[in-house]
Order: sequence, then C-alpha cells, then structure tokens
Amino acid sequence: MQAPLISLLTDFGLTDTYVGQMKAALLRIAPNALLVDLTHEVPAQDVKAGAFLLWSAVEAFPEGSLHLAVVDPGVGSTRRAVAARTRRGDVLVGPDNGLLVPALEQLGGLAAAVELTAPEYWGPKQSRTFHGRDVFAPVVGHLAAEVPLEKLGRALQDLERPFSFPPPKEEDGCPVGEVLHVDTYGNLITNLPGAVLPARFRVHLGNTVIENAPQAHYQAVAQGKPLSLVGSAGLLEVSVRDGSAAEVLGVGRGARVRIEPR
Amino acid sequence: MQAPLISLLTDFGLTDTYVGQMKAALLRIAPNALLVDLTHEVPAQDVKAGAFLLWSAVEAFPEGSLHLAVVDPGVGSTRRAVAARTRRGDVLVGPDNGLLVPALEQLGGLAAAVELTAPEYWGPKQSRTFHGRDVFAPVVGHLAAEVPLEKLGRALQDLERPFSFPPPKEEDGCPVGEVLHVDTYGNLITNLPGAVLPARFRVHLGNTVIENAPQAHYQAVAQGKPLSLVGSAGLLEVSVRDGSAAEVLGVGRGARVRIEPR
Amino acid sequence: MQAPLISLLTDFGLTDTYVGQMKAALLRIAPNALLVDLTHEVPAQDVKAGAFLLWSAVEAFPEGSLHLAVVDPGVGSTRRAVAARTRRGDVLVGPDNGLLVPALEQLGGLAAAVELTAPEYWGPKQSRTFHGRDVFAPVVGHLAAEVPLEKLGRALQDLERPFSFPPPKEEDGCPVGEVLHVDTYGNLITNLPGAVLPARFRVHLGNTVIENAPQAHYQAVAQGKPLSLVGSAGLLEVSVRDGSAAEVLGVGRGARVRIEPR
Repeated sequence: MQAPLISLLTDFGLTDTYVGQMKAALLRIAPNALLVDLTHEVPAQDVKAGAFLLWSAVEAFPEGSLHLAVVDPGVGSTRRAVAARTRRGDVLVGPDNGLLVPALEQLGGLAAAVELTAPEYWGPKQSRTFHGRDVFAPVVGHLAAEVPLEKLGRALQDLERPFSFPPPKEEDGCPVGEVLHVDTYGNLITNLPGAVLPARFRVHLGNTVIENAPQAHYQAVAQGKPLSLVGSAGLLEVSVRDGSAAEVLGVGRGARVRIEPR
Repeated sequence: MQAPLISLLTDFGLTDTYVGQMKAALLRIAPNALLVDLTHEVPAQDVKAGAFLLWSAVEAFPEGSLHLAVVDPGVGSTRRAVAARTRRGDVLVGPDNGLLVPALEQLGGLAAAVELTAPEYWGPKQSRTFHGRDVFAPVVGHLAAEVPLEKLGRALQDLERPFSFPPPKEEDGCPVGEVLHVDTYGNLITNLPGAVLPARFRVHLGNTVIENAPQAHYQAVAQGKPLSLVGSAGLLEVSVRDGSAAEVLGVGRGARVRIEPR
Repeated sequence: MQAPLISLLTDFGLTDTYVGQMKAALLRIAPNALLVDLTHEVPAQDVKAGAFLLWSAVEAFPEGSLHLAVVDPGVGSTRRAVAARTRRGDVLVGPDNGLLVPALEQLGGLAAAVELTAPEYWGPKQSRTFHGRDVFAPVVGHLAAEVPLEKLGRALQDLERPFSFPPPKEEDGCPVGEVLHVDTYGNLITNLPGAVLPARFRVHLGNTVIENAPQAHYQAVAQGKPLSLVGSAGLLEVSVRDGSAAEVLGVGRGARVRIEPR
C-alpha cells in the first residue's frame, strides 16, 4: 500500500538541526513515509502567518494526506497538542492554538479530533521545548503506520479557534479587503477570493490605483508597473512586473484594498 | 524498476509553500519519484542565473534523470511550456525561455522536444501564475510514470535560444573571460574551462593579480589571500582562503578575467 | 531490508546546487537511501559550529544510521577523508578535522575508523574542491549499499581531535559555563548539562540576572522577559519569551554563564 504524503510546516528555520531531528523522529517509526516540506521559515512564533501558509498549501495534496505543523510559542504550557481528521480523511497534527483551523476548514471541516494524551505514541525522550520532535513527529509516524486517530488520546469536540482571517467586506457596493500575506517575490496576497470580484475593475491600494484589472499575466504591463490578478491560491494579488510590489508600493500585511467595478 | 531521479530548480524561495505545492502535484501522480532539490533560491526572475545553476548541476545526475526547472517571468503569456529529451535520454521540463538550453547542451544536445499542449497531463486546476504546480510538475509526474514524451504535446524542432553564456576569448594570445557566477562562499566562477588554460599562469581580475596559479587547494595560500584553481564545475574560479573573494576583491558577475601564461 | 537513515550536514548553503549534486552522487549508488537534511547553513568553514550542530542532532536518529558531514576548509590538502563506526553501529563520514568527533562520542565512541584511500568507492570524476560530491557522498552510497567500512581504505587508530567543547567549570561551588550556540530563535544554548544544575537557581549572564530558574516553559514569564530552562539538547538555555535572547540581552557565542543555587 502506498504511504500517505506528509507535509511539514514549522518556524524552526533551516540554520539549526531542528527540522532534521523532527524528521528522524518520524522516519524511525514510519521509514516509508513521504515527507514534503511546505516551509520552515514561518516568522518565529507567528501562528497566524503559519495558519495562512498551511491553508494556502493543503489543497495541492491528495485526500488522505497527513499535515504536521508546528508554530508553538506555548510549547510545554497548558496549550493542548492535537490531531484532527477532516471530513475527506486528511489528518492535521500540531498545537491547538489556531494554527491548524483554516487548513481544516479548507479540507472540508472537522470529522474527529483528539488531544494527544497517550504517551505510548510519543518519542523515547521528552523535552519541555521541542514537542515537534518528541510528541508531534512520533504521533504522525504512528498515523502513517496506520494507528487509528482515536488511539492517540482523549476525544475532543472541537479545536480552539482563537482567531480567524478577516473576511472580505463591502462598502458602497464595492468589495473591500486587506493584504493577508507578502510572498517571496513581494506579491501582495489579499483576502478577496475571485468569486467576490466583478468582471473588470480598478484596485485601490494605498496611493496606488491599478487600472484594467484583472490582468491576464505579469507581462500584460510594462516592467516595474503594478498589476492585479487572481493568483494560485484563488485570491486577488497585487504584483509588480519583474519586481516586488511590497517594495515598490510600500505596503504590507494588513494594508486595505478596495475594488471599484468598471 | 528503479524510479528516475528528478532534480528541481526554481526561484520560488523557501519562505512560501510554492515548492511544497509543486512537489505534492508531482508526487500525487508519481509517489515513487526520487526528488532532489538543486536550489529554489535562484534570484527572482533571473533566467540566466537559473540557466547557469542548472547547467552546473546536471552532470552529477545519472543518465535518464528528469530535470524540472522553473524561472518563469513570462508565465501565462505567450512563452511556451516545453519538455526536451537529450541524446542520452534525460528529459528537461520548464518554460521555453532559455533556462533549459545550457543544461540540454551539457547533456549531449536535443533529441526531441514537445510543447506541453495536452491538458490531460496537467493538474486538476489551472492558475494563471503557477505553472510549476499546475502544468510542469504533473507533466514530470507522468514522465516518471513512463508516459512517452511524444504524448505530452506537439513536436518542436528546437527550443528558443534567447541567450548564451559568453564564450572565452583570446587577446594577444592570452585567454580572457568573465565571472559567470558568485557562489555562496563568495567564490568567483568564470567562463574559462580548464582546457583553455596554460599549465602555469597569473590571473588578472580588477586590481588584483594572483601569482602561481593554479593553486593546488585553498590552503596553498595564507588566510585571507586570493588564489585561483579549476573548481568543481570544470571552470576557473577565484577564491579567498577562509573568506569571500567577492567581498575581499570587490568584484562580481560580469567582471573581466585575464590569464597571463608563465 | 530497510535502508538506513542518512543525515546530511554541510556549510554549502542553499543558494547553489552543491547539496543537490552531492545527493545525486549518493543516490546514483544507493537509490533507496533515506536522506534527512540536518542543515546546510553551518557558517562557512566554521568546523566548530558544524561539530556542535552535528552533535546536537545525532541522538534523534536510530542506531545504525549514517551521518555525512562536510565543513571542509582543508579540502584537497593533507587533511584526511575518513569514515568512523561508533560502538552502537552508526557510521560518520567526512573530513578528519574534528567535525565528527563530538557526535562520535555522543553515540558511544569509536569502534573502528578508516582513511578513505580506496578510489574504487569514489565518484567517476575528481575535483580538487568538492570532495562532498566526489568522495564522501559516493562512499556513503556504498555504505548504504552494505559495503563494509573496512573496504573503504586503510585502518586508523583514532580520528584527529584538534578541539573540544569547553567543559563546565565550578567557581566557589557554583557551576560556570559559556554559550556554545545561538539558535535561529535567538536562544542561547550553553555547555551546562541539566545534571550539573541545582534544583532551583539564578542565572547570571552579562548584566542580566534571571530569577526563579529553571522555568517550566516559555510562557512562565511575561512577553519580552528572559527565562532559562534545560532545552531539547539537554543543555541549559537562556531565552526571551516571544523574542530573541541574543538580541535582547546583547550576548552571543562564548558569553560566560554563572549559576547561583537558591
């Protein structure tokens, strides 16, 4: 039988060996596991940024995948460690601090969840600060080796939901949103899904007005000029051709975006 | 049968989840694929830098490997998406913007190429901006699962060749070249292959003269001093022992290098 | 039979293709190998930093794992290339410059070692500067394919031991140590193992005094405040809640740490 894909997302960075230690803890239990790094460069302790990045990636994975996510400033405190199964059969594992919730909803919502209270599925040593290696990775290894979710601990009715992404709004009939994420190219990714947008529109963002949106592709404008289109996450993005919209336009996460139909 | 090695090279960076999404799109089709990251830190949209890095790496791979490369500022526009088979049986997949050409020549030249026009080998969703996930990775997955190249689209006579690396020159009987790449250590990698160099020589680079080249290894000079030898890509390099030649000598890509026989 | 886990640690960085070339050289010999990146961001040529990072990670790996480590400023000179088996059966491969020694001791000490003098187990081409690709990776590939260590070259009595980590000291009955490593979060990791610490103590570090150590977890103090606990490597660490201790306290590697029992 084919091993499930297992995605990994953390704020551990790549300069230390934390990611490698976590993978070793997983692979010693499930050596046939297929690991796919999403990113380990979530800004340190930024649970909301991690939640957005995880949400944006899970749809690319086949049904039944496992997702291990650790952005965990409360490690060792009272925050719970959890595993949650989606309606379509994926399982997400991580701290119960909101990190997993947007991805869970993206994959169809909660079918079952447990708090990770069964130490027989944890690693051989326990530290106070590295549940990624000592709790979460071994648990994911056991899930990959077909241990049922229900054995991992006591059942939960729901996960904690301490935050949610700001929903799109409407002002005077115009969609209004904000920048959720600035990607590596400097693209500004908003909370406005393609479905709320008119056929043709202007984008207002800070002092910038982008005409003739949505553009068909990046080369639809001259070099260095801004453009806007629905990007690979299904959300409206503002870009600069062959440049960084964040730098050129001087805006970032939280910036307000107003859509004016044409 | 052993799955082929598949190299991956992009300018996606490692802070977003784009690389992970691309791998998931490939592995859902070919779960036995053996993925090897070359780099995902090609400078954004720098097709020439990507072409050099891909060229420098492919020879380390066995015959019959697959190479997926995406530095693609023209994504979604009229630039073609292509797959090209080399005479020795490797296949390169990516945008038809020159990125693949030096590697293709390094591996023996073109045997067959197609434009990726058969959507039955693409992913389930299509975005305007992320052909790495939506076109190229699924196509590489199908190639790894032994779909013949010819099924992927219409045959092409050749790839586009919008640029080539500057060839070595000769002035007054002396080889003259330039710096093609500055690596992570600050080594300056030139376009001068070992074969054009005399047995013993001086290197002139900016205001610096390096005597007694080629050195046998980095420790042949004192700490902080420059040296020159033929590096791991078969090209003349200028280094500084336990330091960065780019920083110490104050030169970079494009700098002129003159060889004076001794 | 299950392939062994193989850890990889280098100072090659991730912007070049060196790591990918090294993996290809290994996988063309042992395509079933399970590779786990520890880090490739060891500061360039910093053998001691690499030795610490390798030491900190190997215990997470199962017995019988292979560890390939390359921080190698002496590549091509008289420094030896070696493979060393631990008493419990792991094998470490790399330059004989001290890089492997702390990990070797952590895994139970030396059982057998060889200098890599048998070129039939090297790669097809030899460069002067890239033994990671041309010597070490092929050798690890052959070890993964069950070639016995003893075939790889001539037997050695011991590895070179040019440095060791500073041991904890005692002054007026108080444990005194120093910062060995600053991690990606800015945590200050000291050379003081949990076993030398009293039950309750104060930590003196530069101008900072941390009361009520060890804390139970990061959230035991207010945001932005320092704390101290035994971290995931079994060593005392100094942290700042939701911040970087290195930045907030203005100290780094080598800083003196004094423990005052309470």
